[in-house]
Amino acid sequence: MTPEARAQKIKVLIFDVDGVLTDGQIFVLPGSDGHGIETKGFSAHDGLGISLARLDGIQIGIVTKRQSQTVALRARDLKLEFVYQGQSHKMDAICDILAKANITLDELAYVGDDIIDLPVMRVCGLAIASANARPQVKAAAHYVTPNPGGHGAGRDAVDFILNARGTLEKTIEAYLAADNAAARAADIGTGGM
Amino acid sequence: MTPEARAQKIKVLIFDVDGVLTDGQIFVLPGSDGHGIETKGFSAHDGLGISLARLDGIQIGIVTKRQSQTVALRARDLKLEFVYQGQSHKMDAICDILAKANITLDELAYVGDDIIDLPVMRVCGLAIASANARPQVKAAAHYVTPNPGGHGAGRDAVDFILNARGTLEKTIEAYLAADNAAARAADIGTGGM
Amino acid sequence: MTPEARAQKIKVLIFDVDGVLTDGQIFVLPGSDGHGIETKGFSAHDGLGISLARLDGIQIGIVTKRQSQTVALRARDLKLEFVYQGQSHKMDAICDILAKANITLDELAYVGDDIIDLPVMRVCGLAIASANARPQVKAAAHYVTPNPGGHGAGRDAVDFILNARGTLEKTIEAYLAADNAAARAADIGTGGM
Amino acid sequence: MTPEARAQKIKVLIFDVDGVLTDGQIFVLPGSDGHGIETKGFSAHDGLGISLARLDGIQIGIVTKRQSQTVALRARDLKLEFVYQGQSHKMDAICDILAKANITLDELAYVGDDIIDLPVMRVCGLAIASANARPQVKAAAHYVTPNPGGHGAGRDAVDFILNARGTLEKTIEAYLAADNAAARAADIGTGGM
Repeated sequence: MTPEARAQKIKVLIFDVDGVLTDGQIFVLPGSDGHGIETKGFSAHDGLGISLARLDGIQIGIVTKRQSQTVALRARDLKLEFVYQGQSHKMDAICDILAKANITLDELAYVGDDIIDLPVMRVCGLAIASANARPQVKAAAHYVTPNPGGHGAGRDAVDFILNARGTLEKTIEAYLAADNAAARAADIGTGGM
Repeated sequence: MTPEARAQKIKVLIFDVDGVLTDGQIFVLPGSDGHGIETKGFSAHDGLGISLARLDGIQIGIVTKRQSQTVALRARDLKLEFVYQGQSHKMDAICDILAKANITLDELAYVGDDIIDLPVMRVCGLAIASANARPQVKAAAHYVTPNPGGHGAGRDAVDFILNARGTLEKTIEAYLAADNAAARAADIGTGGM
Repeated sequence: MTPEARAQKIKVLIFDVDGVLTDGQIFVLPGSDGHGIETKGFSAHDGLGISLARLDGIQIGIVTKRQSQTVALRARDLKLEFVYQGQSHKMDAICDILAKANITLDELAYVGDDIIDLPVMRVCGLAIASANARPQVKAAAHYVTPNPGGHGAGRDAVDFILNARGTLEKTIEAYLAADNAAARAADIGTGGM
Repeated sequence: MTPEARAQKIKVLIFDVDGVLTDGQIFVLPGSDGHGIETKGFSAHDGLGISLARLDGIQIGIVTKRQSQTVALRARDLKLEFVYQGQSHKMDAICDILAKANITLDELAYVGDDIIDLPVMRVCGLAIASANARPQVKAAAHYVTPNPGGHGAGRDAVDFILNARGTLEKTIEAYLAADNAAARAADIGTGGM
């Protein structure tokens, strides 16, 4: 089956966090209680991509081994349907998601970058690796994103799926519709093209 | 019309923030009240570019969907004429800027990197995409900067406009004049060239 | 002796920190007592690599000239066997490690990026330089990693050693075994390949 | 005169900060008093380079337009001889340095990346641009570093000067001497080469 045919079945899209929604760098700051405070850089392009996927009827989630408040805050910002932190066995979370979303593995896409993602990538409908993924992960992927994690890999995954479904352009215009309406209402001249 | 001809008419230059004045990475830190504190990296080259553009009579602003104190602080640091945060419909802010600056769309340049910028880029006089812009945005741009956001894309936009107007070198020397005067006053020998 | 033959003898793997486990950038924030608080970006890929090396029976440590709480926190997170900060003479720490681990220099691998690492790299069994290492350090290395520090150089070092021993694939599967078991227990269909 | 001949005369080496000792990115965090707290990433390679230059008898300083505590802290960490922040007219600071160090312009090297650095670069003995410098600055430089700011441009400048003087290898070995002595005292076998 081609990656595009796989993409057409997807109902839920799950991301690993470090190295997929970030570039893999973890910054640790000393907290007042002696514990470390983690921060990491999320991509603005991924945020908009998640809005597009949702507009096209796809549910979105994250499953990550680490546990940090920065990820919880970003997940809330993105209004993610599924948020699983502290998962050393990612298939447990995936099984939970399959049940909650009432879908089969064929309808799940997963974006990963390291070997801990392999068990999910080996069985899910569409396995995507970010450009910075470890070699074993790229080898197991149906599709490798052009951009690395933290710089649009998540958005690339969304674009690939929507493009395969033939809905990318339509979804972008739907996203912009309210804004175009505002422009027309203002009845302003344009600089042409 | 060539991009250079478009550039010659520009009176106001507006930047998107994430991915244009930054590399698109958003760092979230947990705040004391449970809300996230955002930070992102701004380019020193862009700061100086904004000074050059202003010296050449161009007014500068930002229009961004997100809302954060880090952007407010950077905008204050750069003494921007127009600052619009929390704008999901960017054309609303642009219409406001046109009225306040008393200009037409032909006299407005806009630098963007994502599809949310398309409504403005499709109608403004000069549409510029940063090197890291999504493909749909590059396709809609009259000019694509050589450097990505956060690493000089904003400065590239200024250089392109001033170069098209034939004022870049003159403006640079005007910017440096006070400093050259100081050097001459000191009457010091030079190491030659 | 080939680098692979050297790798087969390794029992302890020691990393420099700045430029090896990070990209070399040091961020300084003003602390409440006037002293600077340091932070730097560690790679998630290196963290998993350290787990793999340990699974294969290799002990792990860091020896660094600088001293910071962010490194202490990351070392605790990674459960490192050997942690030496504030070492301007790295061979002192290495001698201590040799004694504690009861190994010879032939059984020690070291990953460095700057000339301060040369004394150790000139004498240890396997000297590895990160892709971003200074030229003198690359010249002294038996192996140069494909990825730069902070973006997987540490993981590359582990993969090289385990690959040379012929244990990389086996160790990855051992790491994943518990997770595979969970997947089988769930008895779910797969999307095939 | 060749850049190498220029380098042989250098007694003082001055760096711009943003884009030279950093990659040009300025991170702003909201402070408790409403003012922004700045942070930026300094390169560990530059720190060691400054130690090497000092060992070879060169005095080191920074002259920067911006003003921040993060730079003050890094300057203290590096024990810099000359620290000038908040300088919009950099030649004023340079004149001050010439007087304090009792040198002529021919004996001063300066590393810059933006047009504000041009007045100094046009008159100093050795003008160096970082790899990420704006085009006008590279055009005015006697030497362009292979690495960008924040990733070793400062170290590249030091290596270039010491190499031109023929003292680089000797200085590196002098820097390492204490460490080598420690290694010999420990009387440990080596893994050979």
